[in-house]
Amino acid sequence: MPHIPLSEKLPGITGLLDYRKDTALPIRQLTQILLRGESTLTEGERELIATVVSQGNECRFCTAAHSAAASVLLNDERIAAAVKTDIDSAPVSGKMKSLLKIAKAAGKSGKLVTEDMVARARAEGATDLELHDTVLIAALFSLYNRYVDGLASVTPADPAFYNRLGNILKEKGYLPSENRYANL
Amino acid sequence: MPHIPLSEKLPGITGLLDYRKDTALPIRQLTQILLRGESTLTEGERELIATVVSQGNECRFCTAAHSAAASVLLNDERIAAAVKTDIDSAPVSGKMKSLLKIAKAAGKSGKLVTEDMVARARAEGATDLELHDTVLIAALFSLYNRYVDGLASVTPADPAFYNRLGNILKEKGYLPSENRYANL
Repeated sequence: MPHIPLSEKLPGITGLLDYRKDTALPIRQLTQILLRGESTLTEGERELIATVVSQGNECRFCTAAHSAAASVLLNDERIAAAVKTDIDSAPVSGKMKSLLKIAKAAGKSGKLVTEDMVARARAEGATDLELHDTVLIAALFSLYNRYVDGLASVTPADPAFYNRLGNILKEKGYLPSENRYANL
Repeated sequence: MPHIPLSEKLPGITGLLDYRKDTALPIRQLTQILLRGESTLTEGERELIATVVSQGNECRFCTAAHSAAASVLLNDERIAAAVKTDIDSAPVSGKMKSLLKIAKAAGKSGKLVTEDMVARARAEGATDLELHDTVLIAALFSLYNRYVDGLASVTPADPAFYNRLGNILKEKGYLPSENRYANL
């Protein structure tokens, strides 16, 4: 049961963003810029970053939601599953492997991002902006992970729930919209 | 040295918020609402929450900056120093002690916020909104802590730097403003 009263129809982050809409708006805007704005990383790749950070922070709701979003965007369920199991052997580029490792480290503590990890990412072709955005996405999902679990919001068990949410995140993005969760 | 090129005149978070202004804006807006918006917690109390979270996450820049902001707002340097040493014996209300403990736990992991900790805060008079805001402030500073350290931004050693920054945070708040750091 959540620590504060939240809508029973809106599990996980959805009820929290509904609880206080004035704080939800800049959180949604930041997420839209980072995960759906112009970038040299695809939307699917950025959802993979959100996935490994949430997994590292053991947030089950966020991990399942962004795995589902990545799978819908990449049109392949195996990639998110693979990065959650072992980044090194996952079917993603060398650059993405190095960025996913930076993200997972940053999600635990910024101090875990070493110069060697950054040098490796640069050698694989990562730009300053990609490094910046990877760390900021990791930081943002560290916010989400703590918001979701710190208030004990509900984590649905049914995988179909996350597939529906992943489709909403693909179709509607992160900004507020009318009847956003009508099909949830 | 930072992992990406940042202005040498803008250490810590200030150079990062200058590096990518479109992502900085919603981060600033969220912080302004949570730390300076209408609340039953004082601005000084909310800066104490930011302080203990940053300390728990071992972010030296953020801890020093928000200790300084709390000290300026509370007009007393001893309170921020005391909560960093031992929350239980610090000269703050019972409600603040319980909220600071929730914040420090949430900053490490949302799962560390227990029902007992929430029940204790409620017994001390904490409201649903105060509990929500405490966890979201902890989540937001977990973002800041990772952003600042994950890109290895510079942490000035001079305490006078943080006193100047604390005064800017009191006088100007968190929204963007012209010549914001002219006196930094």
